[in-house]
Amino acid sequence: MFPTDPVSNLAALIRCPSVTPAEGGALAALEAMLAPVGFKVDRVVAKEPGTPDIENLYARIGGEGPHLMFAGHTDVVPVGDEAAWSRPPFSAAIAEGEMYGRGAVDMKGGIACFVAAVARHVEKHGAPKGSISFLITGDEEGPAINGTVKLLEWAAARGERWDACLVGEPTNPDCIGDMIKIGRRGSLSGRITVHGVQGHAAYPHLADNPVRSILQLAQALMDPPFDDGTENFQPSNLEVTTIDVGNTAVNVIPAKASAAFNIRFNDRWTAESLMAEIVARLDRAAAGSALRPGRAPARYEIVWNERPSHVFLTRNNALIDSLSGAVEAVTGRQPQLSTTGGTSDARFIKDYCPVVEFGLVGKTMHMVDERVALADLEILTGIYETFIARWFGHAAA
Amino acid sequence: MFPTDPVSNLAALIRCPSVTPAEGGALAALEAMLAPVGFKVDRVVAKEPGTPDIENLYARIGGEGPHLMFAGHTDVVPVGDEAAWSRPPFSAAIAEGEMYGRGAVDMKGGIACFVAAVARHVEKHGAPKGSISFLITGDEEGPAINGTVKLLEWAAARGERWDACLVGEPTNPDCIGDMIKIGRRGSLSGRITVHGVQGHAAYPHLADNPVRSILQLAQALMDPPFDDGTENFQPSNLEVTTIDVGNTAVNVIPAKASAAFNIRFNDRWTAESLMAEIVARLDRAAAGSALRPGRAPARYEIVWNERPSHVFLTRNNALIDSLSGAVEAVTGRQPQLSTTGGTSDARFIKDYCPVVEFGLVGKTMHMVDERVALADLEILTGIYETFIARWFGHAAA
Ligand SMILES: [Zn+2]
Ligand SMILES: [Zn+2]
Repeated sequence: MFPTDPVSNLAALIRCPSVTPAEGGALAALEAMLAPVGFKVDRVVAKEPGTPDIENLYARIGGEGPHLMFAGHTDVVPVGDEAAWSRPPFSAAIAEGEMYGRGAVDMKGGIACFVAAVARHVEKHGAPKGSISFLITGDEEGPAINGTVKLLEWAAARGERWDACLVGEPTNPDCIGDMIKIGRRGSLSGRITVHGVQGHAAYPHLADNPVRSILQLAQALMDPPFDDGTENFQPSNLEVTTIDVGNTAVNVIPAKASAAFNIRFNDRWTAESLMAEIVARLDRAAAGSALRPGRAPARYEIVWNERPSHVFLTRNNALIDSLSGAVEAVTGRQPQLSTTGGTSDARFIKDYCPVVEFGLVGKTMHMVDERVALADLEILTGIYETFIARWFGHAAA
Repeated sequence: MFPTDPVSNLAALIRCPSVTPAEGGALAALEAMLAPVGFKVDRVVAKEPGTPDIENLYARIGGEGPHLMFAGHTDVVPVGDEAAWSRPPFSAAIAEGEMYGRGAVDMKGGIACFVAAVARHVEKHGAPKGSISFLITGDEEGPAINGTVKLLEWAAARGERWDACLVGEPTNPDCIGDMIKIGRRGSLSGRITVHGVQGHAAYPHLADNPVRSILQLAQALMDPPFDDGTENFQPSNLEVTTIDVGNTAVNVIPAKASAAFNIRFNDRWTAESLMAEIVARLDRAAAGSALRPGRAPARYEIVWNERPSHVFLTRNNALIDSLSGAVEAVTGRQPQLSTTGGTSDARFIKDYCPVVEFGLVGKTMHMVDERVALADLEILTGIYETFIARWFGHAAA
């Protein structure tokens, strides 16, 4: 069957219980849609010691000429309290014009629509004047170690090059046409630990309470604000997400205290300049604690979490205008070009080609009764089809 | 055998492994010493649902006239790393003029010396011109629920009344004669919990981070200082002893945060006035957090730990002068009259009669290789004997 109907595409995908890291049949279902359209499909298993093997998919149609990538994921988050769902979460049940299911909007729905859009394009015009590829991971909601990063490396090693990418994550807060994402803030996390000297609360002069120091260091992380925002980005924002001492003896001054923080940062910073600023703030606060008579500066250490997400901003008019114009043509609304929200796999793709993000309405994502209006699936398919035509038009010009 | 030798008294007590809540034979050993001197001995078992039964001892010699109580405990803290002891902790081994053993200074040593002092007094002068009693608990190092408090109530209910009390805890920092305790600061503990709104670190405007609020509340508890000290007491001091959030997801803003604190307070405060001051500080800090635009004041709750320890100061010249004079007569040193350090069971006794504390040198208490110089046992016995003679002299005058 030629997969021009986003509703049946999505139903097939939702029925596959592909909770990360399980493939759950979702990539097989996608392969079964793409093959009749003419895609050459590769299933790529990525492995890393200490993590589950992950199945991914790369598919391409077309030959020489501009190359457009569609990126996304078929894995979904757990269903949560299954009894609380009004329809079973892998049933793709339709009620009152909406299809229910885990992944309906995040983001099997986006995939279903893009498949339908490409199928309609090929049906009308034949193979694209260039290439279209799908880069689909099964590890976006998990640790993201065996997903987009490795699949990009695998494809690039085979000689794949792309001119632009559309990520199909849900980007619209309320209504399709609200918002295109043209960049993302960076994200950086760390944990600081302060070492004091344990003792009895009745003899504080014989001890050095690390709680005092962790309060000062945490305060220095939060104030003053890092910046006021930039032309395209919100202000950078740091949250201390935990402080842990774990001392159960109320009369005892503990030996150490630790705190973890996460900062979402804009293009005023690189991850490196931000790390330097944070260390400078902590050093100042630690040295300030030496002003208490008879106390040494707080001894602290910092451990940065994994790899930071780098901030990026896409400045490719052909890509942004094609998408924005398609949204306006189909919905009559002019989408906001935004860099708000969390991180996405676009942060990896931006190292290969310009990337934007546009998909369904995210309201119910990760929640009980995740669902999508059937009308929205048709609208998004129309937008994607228009975008494909416009982008290849632009690119060919 | 008449128990005039503090060294053999102490050896007998140390050989009883009376780690709280076990009696370990220690009270039986004490009874065996006191009976030949002429004491009438009662063994009192105290019970409370949810706690182990505790054995205690009350013994009295004499009749009408001034009544002097000696108070203490035969229970000891655990030995810790037994392999690290240079002599077995319940062997009472003697090496280089020191006796080793858990409880050697805290405070089987004090009991051994007071028994020897009374025995010598009776040997020389016959029964005291009044009464001497021992109020000895097996629950000082534990929860202290089935110990001194209940034993005092039991004795008072039988009609016992006391004119003065000496607690035999180790009070000397370095050398016998350093320090008599004539009062104690109070101790008050509590835990505050702040409720925020959980959310994702990328969307802080949708959440309310309780870590921010707990930092402000904790800071308000610690600064400014509560006072500068009083004539007889050190400054009151508050330590935040733990902060706990327990959030393991670094991207998630947690729903709540809590902190516990302990304050040692002087006679500038009562427990009640101090609670009021703490609540006022927390309320101000919580209201201050409402100054952040769009945020409600932090919602916090406070739970006070159990019963506070009340501050007290003993102002009984007959008692203080008798003891101070005895110390000076035996050692040639003028002891400091102090209110420093932690709490002790004196805080319960002070409701019945004036109380002071004087014992051995505390340096090795609660540590591996707890030990006492044999010479110190003889000196303390001499001080106690002189004190008994002086106090009954004063009291009779
Ligand atoms: Zn997603
Ligand atoms: Zn003790």
